[in-house]
Amino acid sequence: MRIKNPHLKPSQKQVIIIGGGFGGINAAKEFEGNDDVQVILVDQRNYHLFQPLLYQVATAGLNPSDIAVPIRGIFTKEKNISVRLGRVDSVNLKDKYVVGEHGEELAYDYLILACGVRHSYFGKQEWENFAPGLKTVEQATEIRRRILWAFEMAENEADPAKQKALLTFVIVGAGPTGVELAGAIADISRNVINRDFRRIDPTTAQVLLLEMGPRPLTMFSEDLSARAAEDLKDLGVELRTGVKVDNIDQDGVTCGDQRIPSANVFWAAGVEADALSKTLGVELDRAGRVVIGLDLTIPSFPDAYVIGDLASLKLQDGKPMPGLAQPAIQTGRFAAKNILRTMKNKPRKEFKYLDKGQMATIGKRKAVVEMGKLKMTGFIAWLAWLVVHLLFLVGFKNKVSVLFEWIWSYLFSKRGARLITQKEWRFGKELPASPASNPVNQTALASVLK
Amino acid sequence: MRIKNPHLKPSQKQVIIIGGGFGGINAAKEFEGNDDVQVILVDQRNYHLFQPLLYQVATAGLNPSDIAVPIRGIFTKEKNISVRLGRVDSVNLKDKYVVGEHGEELAYDYLILACGVRHSYFGKQEWENFAPGLKTVEQATEIRRRILWAFEMAENEADPAKQKALLTFVIVGAGPTGVELAGAIADISRNVINRDFRRIDPTTAQVLLLEMGPRPLTMFSEDLSARAAEDLKDLGVELRTGVKVDNIDQDGVTCGDQRIPSANVFWAAGVEADALSKTLGVELDRAGRVVIGLDLTIPSFPDAYVIGDLASLKLQDGKPMPGLAQPAIQTGRFAAKNILRTMKNKPRKEFKYLDKGQMATIGKRKAVVEMGKLKMTGFIAWLAWLVVHLLFLVGFKNKVSVLFEWIWSYLFSKRGARLITQKEWRFGKELPASPASNPVNQTALASVLK
Repeated sequence: MRIKNPHLKPSQKQVIIIGGGFGGINAAKEFEGNDDVQVILVDQRNYHLFQPLLYQVATAGLNPSDIAVPIRGIFTKEKNISVRLGRVDSVNLKDKYVVGEHGEELAYDYLILACGVRHSYFGKQEWENFAPGLKTVEQATEIRRRILWAFEMAENEADPAKQKALLTFVIVGAGPTGVELAGAIADISRNVINRDFRRIDPTTAQVLLLEMGPRPLTMFSEDLSARAAEDLKDLGVELRTGVKVDNIDQDGVTCGDQRIPSANVFWAAGVEADALSKTLGVELDRAGRVVIGLDLTIPSFPDAYVIGDLASLKLQDGKPMPGLAQPAIQTGRFAAKNILRTMKNKPRKEFKYLDKGQMATIGKRKAVVEMGKLKMTGFIAWLAWLVVHLLFLVGFKNKVSVLFEWIWSYLFSKRGARLITQKEWRFGKELPASPASNPVNQTALASVLK
Repeated sequence: MRIKNPHLKPSQKQVIIIGGGFGGINAAKEFEGNDDVQVILVDQRNYHLFQPLLYQVATAGLNPSDIAVPIRGIFTKEKNISVRLGRVDSVNLKDKYVVGEHGEELAYDYLILACGVRHSYFGKQEWENFAPGLKTVEQATEIRRRILWAFEMAENEADPAKQKALLTFVIVGAGPTGVELAGAIADISRNVINRDFRRIDPTTAQVLLLEMGPRPLTMFSEDLSARAAEDLKDLGVELRTGVKVDNIDQDGVTCGDQRIPSANVFWAAGVEADALSKTLGVELDRAGRVVIGLDLTIPSFPDAYVIGDLASLKLQDGKPMPGLAQPAIQTGRFAAKNILRTMKNKPRKEFKYLDKGQMATIGKRKAVVEMGKLKMTGFIAWLAWLVVHLLFLVGFKNKVSVLFEWIWSYLFSKRGARLITQKEWRFGKELPASPASNPVNQTALASVLK
């Protein structure tokens, strides 16, 4: 049964937006107060997540709710925008409808696909169990649990080899997420929990950052990349470039003939498009992203837009649009504007990307920033990073509470969210001290006394 | 293999404290800087939880980390206090050792049992799946998920009967937790999310508070109890007293010949002692709590103390010690002092409970407070409640961030932690829109348009 929204007035057009990230939210905002349009924004989550700070949740610096706002709350006053919690399983571009998870079909006049990317293990999906990625709140709290748990278990461990594996943190991929994660773990071990244990010395924890390419942060220019490598070294992160990971299992990582025993491997090496793209029947790039034209529509489907990370778009200068927050925001706004132009029988325009640059933090007080020819490093860059990220957080309250957490952690080297919460809530059972699926064997309590 | 701590100096005594709640933390604090004692504090969690505010986590008002601090962080500077993450499975009082979850044995000179209580379903353990209790962070975030999820699914639901069940919240037990939970859910539906939906009117949500006894908050005097009942009514909570719950299943609650269809049942009706008490082989009360003497030791075992909720203690006036934070703090401090007295060959003293009264909030701006003859109700009582809870929060940072959350929610009727996070983190799988174990059937996305 295909359903046309019965509440739609004859004069109104139905817009369906799939995904409430930077792209989807900003696209919906363009339609605020516009009575010619009814918008349904569908997401599997009830919140919009500020992805750039997710690594701080994973490293106990921020709470999930500091960087997430209910999508509903963003559009409380916009009666023409409905938010729906649910999953879309496929899209029929020809007949203009989307199919929900229970087989129901929803018709649209205009579609905006904004469901982004997820982690890719390049065909080695089994690695995910041993090396979680960092895209969702659940993954972030899982990584947080593993980091904190590792120090606790190392404190209880009598066997020096096992203890060393527990205190070895391996991050695969030296893009911004990998660099930020590695820097934060080094900071935790050196500055936050360094005096909290009695048997282990957390400052001896080894933080390894593995990168297949020749340098970290390849999207930055070479000098900034070299500076980032230096800053990482100062923090205590051991960067290894030109390293290909051949295997990951529950005891560590294998790179060629080298074996790194580690109980804590994290994945920050690659992304692929949301599975929805495969249902479109149109051209995708190697990562499964939808190839679109400069008007942001799918070729031959002028009412179907793709924005943000899900889009594979070659810009005017021949370069691909980067997978960052800014392109998502800009394409979201632009796609909505093209829809409004079409509704007024005007031709669609070509998207022009305004490059606002890029930035990545390295530990607590350093960053690299590159905006066109402007380059910043060190403390100044970190301040710039801080201001930009605060400004772009959705919601004034989130700005205030994140600022408070940051000032606090800056002044006292403490982290506000050092909680090991369970992965699983077990009904009617005692909470086990060691979650079953944790790859680290729990060590005996008694060994603390050895 | 029984192990005596090899790091213990001949002059030192080994104290083992089991449980890092109010009792355990305060007992350990008495030993700070005392070189005659080495303390091992064992807990299954890495954090101390401020239980009295847990209902605010369950109702999206606070973050887990606002009311939890790492136990390690409390004792960073105390080199004679070690914190261990782990579970104790049994205690041998005669030979003075505890047994860890891997069978290892740890000897003690003095033992303080402080592992508290958990929910009791009075033999109907199967109800827990349909009516979670509120004792842990995981339970609180699960209740939060269910509350927020219910409104989302009601918005998607086409069948009026199912929609009504989704918008019916049943809380079993009108003690402080039940009253606070019911008040907060009514507040959310009436004041927080009331304008965020397009198809349902959240203010029509029914909040039912079921109590077996004749009145709510039975530990308070009758006039305060009556006032609380009135305040609940004003908030929109339907209080039903003298109601015995005969069955709970995934579709609702049965009380005698009455059936209440509800997708959201929460349990706040009873507690029982931690399972460890059964391994002691000593006298327990009906709830499994350990019967102790006024010196806080177990009869015949002068070196084994029981404090807080786990203790069944008849006070000098013949009344039982109540299960609150204050008695836990006071017995914790006192047990430690009795140990120090014993070490100096002085006789143990008798514990005297200093009754600091009790308080419970009802919704956002009301409370009842009873301290001896002093009684307060309404806004003044709520202010008193607020000040006391802020002061007793462990950690200055938590005080500041809770105060900030409260001011924010008071001014803007918003709640800072409206996140539906998954119960379970699934490796290598898409996150399902509806967790498998959720008793609420997810409704079709398309029905939003019906």
